[in-house]
This record gives sequence, structure tokens and C-alpha cells, in this order.
Amino acid sequence: MRIGFIGLGIMGRPMALNLLRAGHDLVVSSGSHAADELAGAGATLADGPRAIAEQVELVITMLPNGPEVQQVALGDDGVAAGAHDGLVLVDMSSIAPTAARAVHDGLAAVGVPMLDAPVSGGEPKAVDGTLSIMVGGDEAVFDRVRDVLGVLGASVVRVGPIGAGSTAKLANQVVVAANIAAVSEALVLAELAGVDPEAVVAAIRGGLAGSAVLESKGPMMLRRDFAPGFRIELHAKDLRNARETGEVLSAPLPLTTAVLAMMEQLEQDGHGGDDHSGLVQHYEDRAGTRIGAER
Amino acid sequence: MRIGFIGLGIMGRPMALNLLRAGHDLVVSSGSHAADELAGAGATLADGPRAIAEQVELVITMLPNGPEVQQVALGDDGVAAGAHDGLVLVDMSSIAPTAARAVHDGLAAVGVPMLDAPVSGGEPKAVDGTLSIMVGGDEAVFDRVRDVLGVLGASVVRVGPIGAGSTAKLANQVVVAANIAAVSEALVLAELAGVDPEAVVAAIRGGLAGSAVLESKGPMMLRRDFAPGFRIELHAKDLRNARETGEVLSAPLPLTTAVLAMMEQLEQDGHGGDDHSGLVQHYEDRAGTRIGAER
Repeated sequence: MRIGFIGLGIMGRPMALNLLRAGHDLVVSSGSHAADELAGAGATLADGPRAIAEQVELVITMLPNGPEVQQVALGDDGVAAGAHDGLVLVDMSSIAPTAARAVHDGLAAVGVPMLDAPVSGGEPKAVDGTLSIMVGGDEAVFDRVRDVLGVLGASVVRVGPIGAGSTAKLANQVVVAANIAAVSEALVLAELAGVDPEAVVAAIRGGLAGSAVLESKGPMMLRRDFAPGFRIELHAKDLRNARETGEVLSAPLPLTTAVLAMMEQLEQDGHGGDDHSGLVQHYEDRAGTRIGAER
Repeated sequence: MRIGFIGLGIMGRPMALNLLRAGHDLVVSSGSHAADELAGAGATLADGPRAIAEQVELVITMLPNGPEVQQVALGDDGVAAGAHDGLVLVDMSSIAPTAARAVHDGLAAVGVPMLDAPVSGGEPKAVDGTLSIMVGGDEAVFDRVRDVLGVLGASVVRVGPIGAGSTAKLANQVVVAANIAAVSEALVLAELAGVDPEAVVAAIRGGLAGSAVLESKGPMMLRRDFAPGFRIELHAKDLRNARETGEVLSAPLPLTTAVLAMMEQLEQDGHGGDDHSGLVQHYEDRAGTRIGAER
């Protein structure tokens, strides 16, 4: 399939490369190192979203948040301006469900169907093509792009109509955030009690406390290696989207609210660019201790 | 080995049966259905902890909390009263680290070494002999009972000196409690947003939100099946032990404190006997909705 890919960041760049390697024709916006690299691997360069949309069947967007998706999809020289029969947009950014529905409705007005299809798994799974992809939108549209999404993800699940993918992603981010905080809380407690946090991880990982967070983020906390991965400032953005969504729905989000406050404090302290496993630093600062490598 | 087993509840009964089946000689306190059942399977009946201690090399206790362990170990006609050369006590209850150290010190005064070796995994893993066992105490004592613990657990990890097993268990319970709350928070958010929580679980389980809690407790929430398992009132007891331990150490426990308040509210509302997956009812009550089977 001829695919336009917009948003060549930490996640988008390896995803675009995987589409190229799977034999798809790729079109990307010129003007970045990542675009030049992809052009070197066979991608076509074009001048912005409209020009990309005009020459492809599918546009995939992988952008920071809702306003950026809105701009690329519906702004001047956006995807909508390049609308034509047979064009589909799949937004794989993590944005609020209301934002996904707004962009969907704007594109529907020019006859372009859209799916919201955010991902989980971070850079390593983007590189490996083993992301978890949560899809919202019409089943018939999903069927048209399912094989393409299968190149990018090990798990591709349609969870409901437009906005449902973004809702599932919010649910995902709520669970991940609280679990990172819980592991931090537990390991700092162990450290203060004089028990080696690494031994605690070894003792609890096989039981009901076991999780993907404990397996992938626990070692980063113990090594105090907070190179992203997935940045605190992006996770905070997702939790703000969860909070806004929850406010409209009167959803109780006490853990989400508590962890968001920790992340925003870390952002203020200059740790917004750390991996979200760096949340442990909030607990360490409060406890006046450090876990892991410095012991 | 000739082993005394004290505390034949939901967890202790299947653990004792597994020791019998592995060929150990078992001595239990008479006067309960579980004791009669074990006697039928080959166990010897005796009249209380002192009488048990006098005729075994190892006493295992599996009791509700610290005061019960203190009473059985150090009370009138307790294990200490039956102290003799070669006797070891392994307490597998979930109690506060300070309580474990106090019992250890009381037993040391009569020459009986003790380990604290609490478990994770709940009734199913007690039945299967695949518990995660977190051990605190002297390595030489651990070596004497390691094979016996291997009958009960798939993972047997010594995490440090006496009290370290109980500290690891507190860490475990903090992580499990926050994760159950996080899954509840996320699924109720999805329900309120009109997205099928079961589809959300399917979409996120393969990514960073994946966990043993999501795998084993998520389906119970979706089926609204809160038969224990592990009761809310026992998990609340563990979190109170964590809070007390945290207060002494000035450990920040915001998520633990928040989830404990939810559990204590559910206890007041008559749900203390529900499985801890029933924590989702706190979120449902606040949101005025129900997830899962009733949709």
C-alpha cells in the first residue's frame, strides 16, 4: 500500500522504517534528519500533509497530542485539503477521545474515514514491530488497514467506535502510571527498612505483584537509568487527558490524580525528559534516600 | 522431616496437605475439620503448639496476623514452651516486620531460631504448591528448611535477615493493592466512556499495562465474581501493617494510604469478606455504574 507517515519522532521513525521494510511505498514530509534517513531507505519526500495525502491511500499520524493532530489533519494544507476517494487516516498518537472524535468529524465532512489507533509498548516495541495497538472506528475501515497495522504491532485489537482506541490508551496509561508509582512506593519502603530492593524484586516478581512494569521499569529504577524510553512529560500529558476525560464523565480517578501531581512536580524539577521509571525519584526525594546502584 | 503445622485456614490447609503428599511427617492441632481431614491423610494430632513443638524439628505457622503468631510462639503452652535442640520455627503468616523481629527475639531467648517466610499467590498457588515465598533470617537456618519450603513454593527467595521476608511481603501487597485499584480505575473510566471494559483488557494486557493482577483479577471484575481468593479484610490488614511500618521509617505511602481507605470503606459496607478484586465496587459506587456482566 502507498502510505503517508507524519510524525517521525522516537516512535514514528522506527514504525515508518518497519512499513518500508515490509514492502509498503512510503511518503514522508521533507525537512528532517529522520525524513532524509527514510528517503535513503526508499521513502518518497513530499512537502507537507496535503501533498502527502494527495498521493497515498493511507495517512498515519504519530504526533505529540491532540492539537498537533488537529492541525495536521484539518489545518491549512492539512490532510483534509488533500482529500480524495479511497483515502483513510489512522491516527496512532495518544490524544484525548474527544479530540479523536473532533478530528474524525472534521475529516468525515470531506469524506475521509478515520481510526484512532494509539499504541503501547514504547520505543523497543516500536523498533521490533511488536506494539500493542488499540483501535477505535468503523469495522469496515479497520478491515482495510488491519494488515498494515499488523506490521507495526504484535497485538491489534479493535475496542469500539471512534474514540474507543484513545479511551483504551487512557486506561492503559492510568494502569501503567499507578503501577510505576506502586513499584516506586514499595521499593523505597524496602530501602528504608534496610532490605535490598533488588532482592525484593526477585522475591515478588513471580507472584501477584508481577507485571510488565516490574520487569521493564524495575531494573531501570535499580540501575538509576532514566534514559527514555517514554518520557515523564508525555505520560503526564496522557494523564491530563485522562483527567479531562474523567471530569466530563464524573469518573473517580484518585490514583491518576495523585501520580499526575508527582509527575508534574518532577517536570518542575527538570525531570520531564526522564523515562517515566524516573517517577521513583519523587519517592526518593520525599524519603531522603536512593535505591539501587548507589547502595 | 517431622513438621508441625499451625494454622489450617484457606492457605494453611492445602500447604499442609502438600507437605504430607511430599512424604513429610505432619503434626497438627486437634479440634478442627481441617485437622481431622489431615489426620485422615496421615497426619498426627496433638494438643496445641507446645505439644506439637515437643515432637517435631520444624514448626510452620500460617496465622492471620502478628498477635496470633506471638500467642502461638511465645504464649502459655506456645512453641517456646516446647523448645528443644534442633527445633526451628518458620512463620509464613503475613505480619509486620517489627512483629516478626519481636517473635524472633522471644524464641532466640529459648534457643529456637526463626525465619519469617510470608507467601504470595493466594489459594490457587497454595493448592498447586507454586507460591512465591519471601524469606528473612539467617542463611544457615534457611539452608535447613529450604527443601521443605520448595514443596510449597515455585519461588523461594531469601531477601535478608529476620523481618526482611515480611518487608518484602509488605512491598508485594502495596504493589498488588495499587494495581488492583489502577485496573478498577481504568475499567470504570472505560465503562463511563461507553467502551467495553472486556475489550479494553484484551487491548492492553499485552503491553506495559500487563500484569498478574490484570490476568487473574481483571476477569473476576468483569464477571463480578468476588468469591475469595484473598479477602479485602486481610489485604487491608497488610496495608495497615505497611502504613505502621512506613510511619516508623517516614516512608511516603500515598497510594497505599488511598487504597487502604477504599478497602476500609468496603469493610464498613460489609464487603470485607469479598475477594480483593472486589475493590472495583468502590469505584463503581462512586461512579454510579457497574462494569462487566451486567452491561
